[in-house]
Amino acid sequence: MNLTQRYQLSLALLTDMYQLTMAQGYWKKGMAEQEAVFHLYFRKNPFKGGYTVSAGLADAIDLLRHFQFTATDLDYLRSLTGSQGQPLFEEEFLEHLRKLTFSCDVDAIPEGTVVFPDEPLLRIKGPMLQCQLLETPLLTILNFQTLIATKAARVVDAAQGDNVLEFGMRRAQGPDGALSAARAAFIGGVGATSNLLAGQLFNIPVKGTHAHSWVMSFDEEQEAFRAYADVFPHDSVFLVDTYNTLEGIRKAIDVAQKMRENGQELKGIRLDSGDLAYLSIEGRKMLDEAGFPEVSILASNDLDEHLIQSLKLQGAKIDTWGIGTKMVTAYDQPALGGVYKLAAFRQSGGEWEYKLKLSEQLIKVSTPGILQVRRFYKGNTIVGDMIYSEPLQINASATMVHPNDPTQRKSFSQDCTHEDLLVPIFRTGEAVYSSPDLPEIQKRTKQQLSLLHETYRRFLNPHIYKVGLEEQLHELKMNLVIELRKGAQNAKE
Amino acid sequence: MNLTQRYQLSLALLTDMYQLTMAQGYWKKGMAEQEAVFHLYFRKNPFKGGYTVSAGLADAIDLLRHFQFTATDLDYLRSLTGSQGQPLFEEEFLEHLRKLTFSCDVDAIPEGTVVFPDEPLLRIKGPMLQCQLLETPLLTILNFQTLIATKAARVVDAAQGDNVLEFGMRRAQGPDGALSAARAAFIGGVGATSNLLAGQLFNIPVKGTHAHSWVMSFDEEQEAFRAYADVFPHDSVFLVDTYNTLEGIRKAIDVAQKMRENGQELKGIRLDSGDLAYLSIEGRKMLDEAGFPEVSILASNDLDEHLIQSLKLQGAKIDTWGIGTKMVTAYDQPALGGVYKLAAFRQSGGEWEYKLKLSEQLIKVSTPGILQVRRFYKGNTIVGDMIYSEPLQINASATMVHPNDPTQRKSFSQDCTHEDLLVPIFRTGEAVYSSPDLPEIQKRTKQQLSLLHETYRRFLNPHIYKVGLEEQLHELKMNLVIELRKGAQNAKE
Repeated sequence: MNLTQRYQLSLALLTDMYQLTMAQGYWKKGMAEQEAVFHLYFRKNPFKGGYTVSAGLADAIDLLRHFQFTATDLDYLRSLTGSQGQPLFEEEFLEHLRKLTFSCDVDAIPEGTVVFPDEPLLRIKGPMLQCQLLETPLLTILNFQTLIATKAARVVDAAQGDNVLEFGMRRAQGPDGALSAARAAFIGGVGATSNLLAGQLFNIPVKGTHAHSWVMSFDEEQEAFRAYADVFPHDSVFLVDTYNTLEGIRKAIDVAQKMRENGQELKGIRLDSGDLAYLSIEGRKMLDEAGFPEVSILASNDLDEHLIQSLKLQGAKIDTWGIGTKMVTAYDQPALGGVYKLAAFRQSGGEWEYKLKLSEQLIKVSTPGILQVRRFYKGNTIVGDMIYSEPLQINASATMVHPNDPTQRKSFSQDCTHEDLLVPIFRTGEAVYSSPDLPEIQKRTKQQLSLLHETYRRFLNPHIYKVGLEEQLHELKMNLVIELRKGAQNAKE
Repeated sequence: MNLTQRYQLSLALLTDMYQLTMAQGYWKKGMAEQEAVFHLYFRKNPFKGGYTVSAGLADAIDLLRHFQFTATDLDYLRSLTGSQGQPLFEEEFLEHLRKLTFSCDVDAIPEGTVVFPDEPLLRIKGPMLQCQLLETPLLTILNFQTLIATKAARVVDAAQGDNVLEFGMRRAQGPDGALSAARAAFIGGVGATSNLLAGQLFNIPVKGTHAHSWVMSFDEEQEAFRAYADVFPHDSVFLVDTYNTLEGIRKAIDVAQKMRENGQELKGIRLDSGDLAYLSIEGRKMLDEAGFPEVSILASNDLDEHLIQSLKLQGAKIDTWGIGTKMVTAYDQPALGGVYKLAAFRQSGGEWEYKLKLSEQLIKVSTPGILQVRRFYKGNTIVGDMIYSEPLQINASATMVHPNDPTQRKSFSQDCTHEDLLVPIFRTGEAVYSSPDLPEIQKRTKQQLSLLHETYRRFLNPHIYKVGLEEQLHELKMNLVIELRKGAQNAKE
């Protein structure tokens, strides 16, 4: 179930106020229908990592398909007043909004793709007014889901094939923070979520154990385990740390023995506090010695990819990881700094004018053009991504320039295969793409990560994947920067 | 508009899987209707701060009022299978859920109240099954909104009376992350949001300027400003850093002069990059010298309370602060670690059994009882909060014990006035409280913060506000801890 189905609302107002005031400006100045190209991209991989996993496109598509102002939306806009008490929006403009239907071309990188800084995840081309209004919701959706899919991919990578479960709802940023995170974490590779609503809406597996309160509501811990096993004879994972963990494990083993007498097998135990390395190693020994080598050990307690890695190094005997807060909020970097920048503009029927936003720092200067990303492969690994502008195409030598250091260049040899990453999503407002289902997207993530040499996947100082601007695009950008800086300079003199 | 109205869904499944499996367990074991008391509380003020601002209660109330399993919810639960392919939930249990109506007593601390670690923000008393199911959504809602209200209060405090605007939607954690954050930030004291949907749903003021794309879609920056002023003659704030900030300010002044000739006044300029201290000081000088002392200077660009404080120290001439990412995601601590713990339990008609969760660390041992918080006042400041259990009441000397260091005690003299913080919200499932509107809650936050001596409000090593356990409650807790540890010990021997 997609975003608009979840909400009982038109989401046309899910945007920033200034998008509407600018929209009225474009409309008033006869620019509403002029054609614009915007790109949505980020400038740095999150978590000091070497890659990013794209996610959120299905929700973005859903939002665009249902983009329409309702009478209630317009009434609200009508009620807004300026500093003199005057209505902020003109009736004719509101009428224009009422009749608005989405008519843009959208190209985007499919969910579950490994992506890198400066690459447009989404490109939108169409009437300036529409492109402008859509900036905020597209950023909100793609920024967050991409962030969480990336975090989850890192966690899953650290777990080296163990099961990873998403348990974070209680610490998520609001109900939809939890839902969007569950979806994105599944894309990143987790096996299941504890969030039932996410399970229902997205059709992803749900899992759970029991809480301390279950144990506390019985007089004896053992009685609590026995009762749970009675109710779920084939699906019990006992939480063993309510009073004393090793003692809890002993009691779990006692109950597991009784279960076995009745032809049932305990599935697992869960550790939620204390020294997880020590307790899991001891617990594994106790379980194995008692004849329960198949009982799994699930650990939770503020874990993330770094702790998993550290626990593995210490020989912890954990085979299932319950990951909550640190994953669903992307705790160490809770926002992806994605931006949405104007890159080309034209009067209807006219020539494209290329646009960029200057900045003192070259890294923050946006790239003009109508951009596409060409990814080069050598055998089973990806070796570099070239951002090029479709009107310019790619020069014969297939040379690209480092985006922030023009002295560094790279060419791709003839034996490289390649693929263009942005695919058509909408044409003149009509959806021409149908999103794969989530298990397919999850598979794609896994396959995509396997294309990356492992040096890009390590957590500490990962190798930097090569992304460059195609040579002619680089020239276009440099000339435009120089021209704009000259303009600012002349105006000063 | 509250949570359930925003979503086109029943939110009964907005909970963790294990709540439902435990619920079936309680039901199966005849414990579903046994009476339980749970408390929701956190263990540390966020952001290394000295206080926390409660928020989210209205959404929590709304969720409880509409708590009901729909046929669709039950169909989903019916579809879930265990490891043997067997249905996980029994038909009779699903029938029990179908007939379930919320019947608990809830007491809670009103939104906009200054609160501290270990204090129950919410207490729920009622049938075990219901209390258990509600753990996750109550935590999700209260954890996040309390976190953001606290962050916003800190930002507003740093701004020392300047306007603070919430601009964070594009970096928020999903659409509802943005909506919940806008609501909570308003409770914390921000003046307006850029999020139109939040404006519409919560009836809070909306504000905005314009984006770089507006400037870039004109040939000349000055033309862009002039066009914007044409459309919004009384409500224009020009973004001046698209190409070169000081140059942009000069152009803004030119346009402001033309506006004045037409009887219009520029409202402000906005800085979104570069050295905000330098640029705002220069900008202020330029504006003042040109005869525009009333034109305000708005700054944005990854600001938080620490940067605002630093900019103020440097004499920055900023009077309006646009705060985004760092506030709406609570960037430096994106989750409040609120927990929900069983504290008392009884057979229907029986005596209360007090419950606690042990831990190696005393700070993580939960507190038994049916808790209330008594706040003591000396004149216009608050001087300490005493957590007490209602069945025990408060001993004659009004003495409390430090929660983690029993050697520290504090008594309150007779001249202190006091107030109990938790107020009745539901009685046997009926709402007996109506939430104030948001401006009222915002006022309450401001008034509450004024009760705190400023040493509790500073950002670096704030003074620690005294919260203790009433002496008899402390004894009850200690005895229970010793007894449970002994139990664990005996079992080992």
